[in-house]
Amino acid sequence: MDFTSIVGFIAGLALVIFGIVFDQSAGVIWSTIWNFVDYPSMAITFGGTIAATVISFPISYFMGIPKHMKVIMRGNQYKPQEYIDTIVDFAQEARRKGLLSLEDKASQLKDTFMQDSIMLIVDAIDPAKVKEILEDKLNGLEDRHSHVWQFYERFSTYAPAFGMIGTLIGLINMLANMDMNSDGGATKMARGMSTALITTFYGSMISNLLLTPLAHKLHMLHDEEMVCKEIVVEGVVAIQAGDNPKHIEERLNAYVNESKRIQKVGTFAGASSSSNDKKTKGKH
Amino acid sequence: MDFTSIVGFIAGLALVIFGIVFDQSAGVIWSTIWNFVDYPSMAITFGGTIAATVISFPISYFMGIPKHMKVIMRGNQYKPQEYIDTIVDFAQEARRKGLLSLEDKASQLKDTFMQDSIMLIVDAIDPAKVKEILEDKLNGLEDRHSHVWQFYERFSTYAPAFGMIGTLIGLINMLANMDMNSDGGATKMARGMSTALITTFYGSMISNLLLTPLAHKLHMLHDEEMVCKEIVVEGVVAIQAGDNPKHIEERLNAYVNESKRIQKVGTFAGASSSSNDKKTKGKH
Amino acid sequence: MDFTSIVGFIAGLALVIFGIVFDQSAGVIWSTIWNFVDYPSMAITFGGTIAATVISFPISYFMGIPKHMKVIMRGNQYKPQEYIDTIVDFAQEARRKGLLSLEDKASQLKDTFMQDSIMLIVDAIDPAKVKEILEDKLNGLEDRHSHVWQFYERFSTYAPAFGMIGTLIGLINMLANMDMNSDGGATKMARGMSTALITTFYGSMISNLLLTPLAHKLHMLHDEEMVCKEIVVEGVVAIQAGDNPKHIEERLNAYVNESKRIQKVGTFAGASSSSNDKKTKGKH
Amino acid sequence: MDFTSIVGFIAGLALVIFGIVFDQSAGVIWSTIWNFVDYPSMAITFGGTIAATVISFPISYFMGIPKHMKVIMRGNQYKPQEYIDTIVDFAQEARRKGLLSLEDKASQLKDTFMQDSIMLIVDAIDPAKVKEILEDKLNGLEDRHSHVWQFYERFSTYAPAFGMIGTLIGLINMLANMDMNSDGGATKMARGMSTALITTFYGSMISNLLLTPLAHKLHMLHDEEMVCKEIVVEGVVAIQAGDNPKHIEERLNAYVNESKRIQKVGTFAGASSSSNDKKTKGKH
Amino acid sequence: MDFTSIVGFIAGLALVIFGIVFDQSAGVIWSTIWNFVDYPSMAITFGGTIAATVISFPISYFMGIPKHMKVIMRGNQYKPQEYIDTIVDFAQEARRKGLLSLEDKASQLKDTFMQDSIMLIVDAIDPAKVKEILEDKLNGLEDRHSHVWQFYERFSTYAPAFGMIGTLIGLINMLANMDMNSDGGATKMARGMSTALITTFYGSMISNLLLTPLAHKLHMLHDEEMVCKEIVVEGVVAIQAGDNPKHIEERLNAYVNESKRIQKVGTFAGASSSSNDKKTKGKH
Repeated sequence: MDFTSIVGFIAGLALVIFGIVFDQSAGVIWSTIWNFVDYPSMAITFGGTIAATVISFPISYFMGIPKHMKVIMRGNQYKPQEYIDTIVDFAQEARRKGLLSLEDKASQLKDTFMQDSIMLIVDAIDPAKVKEILEDKLNGLEDRHSHVWQFYERFSTYAPAFGMIGTLIGLINMLANMDMNSDGGATKMARGMSTALITTFYGSMISNLLLTPLAHKLHMLHDEEMVCKEIVVEGVVAIQAGDNPKHIEERLNAYVNESKRIQKVGTFAGASSSSNDKKTKGKH
Repeated sequence: MDFTSIVGFIAGLALVIFGIVFDQSAGVIWSTIWNFVDYPSMAITFGGTIAATVISFPISYFMGIPKHMKVIMRGNQYKPQEYIDTIVDFAQEARRKGLLSLEDKASQLKDTFMQDSIMLIVDAIDPAKVKEILEDKLNGLEDRHSHVWQFYERFSTYAPAFGMIGTLIGLINMLANMDMNSDGGATKMARGMSTALITTFYGSMISNLLLTPLAHKLHMLHDEEMVCKEIVVEGVVAIQAGDNPKHIEERLNAYVNESKRIQKVGTFAGASSSSNDKKTKGKH
Repeated sequence: MDFTSIVGFIAGLALVIFGIVFDQSAGVIWSTIWNFVDYPSMAITFGGTIAATVISFPISYFMGIPKHMKVIMRGNQYKPQEYIDTIVDFAQEARRKGLLSLEDKASQLKDTFMQDSIMLIVDAIDPAKVKEILEDKLNGLEDRHSHVWQFYERFSTYAPAFGMIGTLIGLINMLANMDMNSDGGATKMARGMSTALITTFYGSMISNLLLTPLAHKLHMLHDEEMVCKEIVVEGVVAIQAGDNPKHIEERLNAYVNESKRIQKVGTFAGASSSSNDKKTKGKH
Repeated sequence: MDFTSIVGFIAGLALVIFGIVFDQSAGVIWSTIWNFVDYPSMAITFGGTIAATVISFPISYFMGIPKHMKVIMRGNQYKPQEYIDTIVDFAQEARRKGLLSLEDKASQLKDTFMQDSIMLIVDAIDPAKVKEILEDKLNGLEDRHSHVWQFYERFSTYAPAFGMIGTLIGLINMLANMDMNSDGGATKMARGMSTALITTFYGSMISNLLLTPLAHKLHMLHDEEMVCKEIVVEGVVAIQAGDNPKHIEERLNAYVNESKRIQKVGTFAGASSSSNDKKTKGKH
Repeated sequence: MDFTSIVGFIAGLALVIFGIVFDQSAGVIWSTIWNFVDYPSMAITFGGTIAATVISFPISYFMGIPKHMKVIMRGNQYKPQEYIDTIVDFAQEARRKGLLSLEDKASQLKDTFMQDSIMLIVDAIDPAKVKEILEDKLNGLEDRHSHVWQFYERFSTYAPAFGMIGTLIGLINMLANMDMNSDGGATKMARGMSTALITTFYGSMISNLLLTPLAHKLHMLHDEEMVCKEIVVEGVVAIQAGDNPKHIEERLNAYVNESKRIQKVGTFAGASSSSNDKKTKGKH
């Protein structure tokens, strides 16, 4: 479980509420919070934003929101180093016992993409086709995922727009009915302006504390997933080609942050996962 | 029929109107709606927006608006899973009876793109050329469709621009003729400001509740159509190459959401549509 | 001649002027138009915009303005269907009488690009080179044309910027010299503000009713020209390869809107331009 | 020398100053210019903009400013037609006397890129490598040049940002110290507002009359240089391949505006620079 | 060490503070600085910005901030000319003594990427694979680095957004509680407005003087590193292919600014680093 998103959201909300109720001279005045609650404003901002998004996207994207939230709560499950280790493990197995021997090992994998990928080479499908199939899968996945984060991005652009529309409505109504010469005209105008600005506040908050960060988080999680999927694709293709497990590892290390490898990498051979790195140096 | 776009538009409009007429203290005041009706404002915002779009695009795009609306009302007609099933069906037929046997089957297809594509391989055209022809068709389609949603996107950027131009006109006129020292000067100024802001309101509404969502919906419908067209292209090329129907299905599944397949996919073989998935495992 | 651009511009201008002079209560007051005429404002907005564009682009782009206007007035001259028909015609001629026979036919063509392209295959230049030469030409054309519409796009971004600079100048001057305590101070301030906003109005109008639409129109005309040029390139390459005229037509139809072909296309064979579509079906 | 940039800048500045000092009723009042001079405003806008750019870019970019100015003053030195003529000249020489004969001719060239390029084929380096070397050079050049115009672009985005920061500072100070009830409170507020807006004015002017146009001019000059460099690369590769000088010219003409060639081009052969265009037609 | 970033930041901050405290008539008034310190404003702007970024990015990016600062403080360590010299040196060594002889030399290199790259050819790995491995590494590096600068870019876009949210909160509170008819109502309103604007000031400063420049600096440092890494990749591939060291140098010079080479480059041969440039001319 990855609570940073929830922690971030709650902390952001708490800080904004603190900013609302705290007055440097008078201290905390909780009643101030009611300046920020206005039902017609909610109707315009939340309702309008959702309505515009309903027109823009098939309803299935809205149905997917709980699933997307679960994905964000779960956090990143993809550790490139584990994937590299697994691939190297499979590569060594394949060298010793042949590609067919991978079937049993593969059936124990939790990652179905990796499992399917390895079954492709167990099934002895043509190497060029294996690569094509796996790259098609990655492209398909990227397409579908990108539509999801674009959903939140688009959602997040409607929020400030309807916030502004709400403020325009408030201003137009206020100014049309204003009688500046009557007693309290200016005070009434100030109150009206205050209410008018609430929708802009709503729109900015939804966009900047909720939808934009969610869109970005989903994009980041996708990127982290893709790194592992690319490791699988490149690894599986290399296993099928019968490459040296050490060379496979060296290549796949390209996907991992250098600093994480810096301890064990001395020379090229040092990139191998075997414990006798230094000794093997120069032999191959 | 897909009513979500209309429902979204009407709901959005209703919520905005509710926001206009509802006052938290006084309840619903229907007459408020007249604050938002101003004919010269309409002339500037709607007229100016359309005029700028007329200069930017050939008139044929305006002629196409009813057709585009029909496309949006019809909603997505392209179900990737159905296309995959049809392709796999054709692939099995081709394996059993040869490519020529596909002609009759193809003539019953409703999708003319799929029909034309299959006729290309029935006509025994060179595989490389079949791929080129079909990809040219997809590119041509993408070009034409993208011009359509760009039409609505461009349209939607002129609306707030002419909304602002209208507001500037209102402000300049109001400020030039203002006599702040006379009785009711400030009140008159407030009224003028109210009217001036109406064009900005019009521009934002047209852009955010109508044109931008339409542009995006057309883009989404295109993306969903393209997925099916790409399935056809890849499938037809694979049929011509004489690929194993199961492998074709596995490849085309790359275009479909994983979760939709999760039930029937256990191993690679499980991706086949045949009912005896498990039994065939390990055979090929 | 294509008058839509002029009609659009004049209609837009008329609507804006109507919005200026029409008052919902007082009717048309023509003198209002003078609120929008201010010579120093013109100097800043028009002059500044042109000056910034002069720095940004070689002077030759300004020299080209009359030519660009002529191109826009002329409208789209490129009909894909005509190009396809001509190419198919040449393909049939080439099949019957050989490539050399195309020379006379080509010399009668009005489109010099098509003429030059066909002369390349009459001159029996190497197919790979023909394709390279023609694609270089398209790229070169795209480069030069894109610079032209970028000229208008860039031009159009300077206009609102100098509009805002003018408004800032007006505001700074007005506020610096204001004496709010004197009689008529507020009225004078309102007048000053009115004048200050005129530059923003000028900038928005030039950008949104003139320069942006022109930039976009030129882009659209280019896109329509490129479709025909691509038809020529693909057609000429196919003629040189000795392709079947019917197949050439089928391929080139990828560039044309489906709906335009829907009447005559039944099956693949139906895409041929010959009158006996149905009869030939199934023969090839 | 190309004075358009300086002329544009001076004209723009003069028009803005005219807009500042000219009053439609009172005529020119030179003292108005002092409303626009404020030293703390300069410190914030100019200083802040430069400071942010110093953080963003290595100091060497600032050192290069005089050189960039010289490049802009010099204007475009690259005439595609001259380059084509030179290449065709070399191609004819190479045909008559062989590639080695080009060495002397090349040593007289002023353009070192062209000289180096021709020396590559004189040195009989492998054709594939020649192309790679030259394309690497173009890519390297594009990389370095693009960093330069991005420097001015980035510079130009900081200017309005610090202009706004200055205005915020002015407003916050003014509003915090304001006593609206005292005599002249409103007048003093107007003065403060006037000063606060000066930084926004500075930021807009630097960005729109200086930095953005410079960035764009450098980009344009780069584009014009690249066209000639691409002519050299394509020409040199063609010379090494021993292509017909006429065909080389025809291909390179793809880089030149059609209208410039329209007079002398009748048919394909007509694109040759030799005087006996018509007679040679049909011979090759 | 590269102090320009710190110098730039401190200078920018000092200039802004000078702009705050300096008044053209009254001189420096240090107490003005307190107008710009407001704790709830800090909570909203800094807190909200960080909260939104925490949702958007994995926490590891925050952990990396000290490392990123160190990278910025260290400045550019990558000198293309040194890399070219080293590669040419290795190329000469390889020509004289064979690829295996490079192992000892490579072990003394400080740059581990270069070391690993040379070990690949010492280990006699297949040339095509060497190129693939190294390009994978560059792509992986680009991916990881681009996520880092995108972190600062995204961070920098939240800052003005929460600055605006803070200002909205301030305005809504102020306007809701305002009593314009009481004594000092306008003065109190001015004070409230002043405080409300502080968050916008904070947001702009963080974004424009800190986060945006840092993002750009990291991008620039990456670009400078990549040039050297590309030199290594191209150089190592050329060494493995047994290319002439002079030709390798000529090619790698494509990555270096022309002006830096202008002194020693006369002709093609002049690009060699040997001291007898002129003499070797024409020999090869």
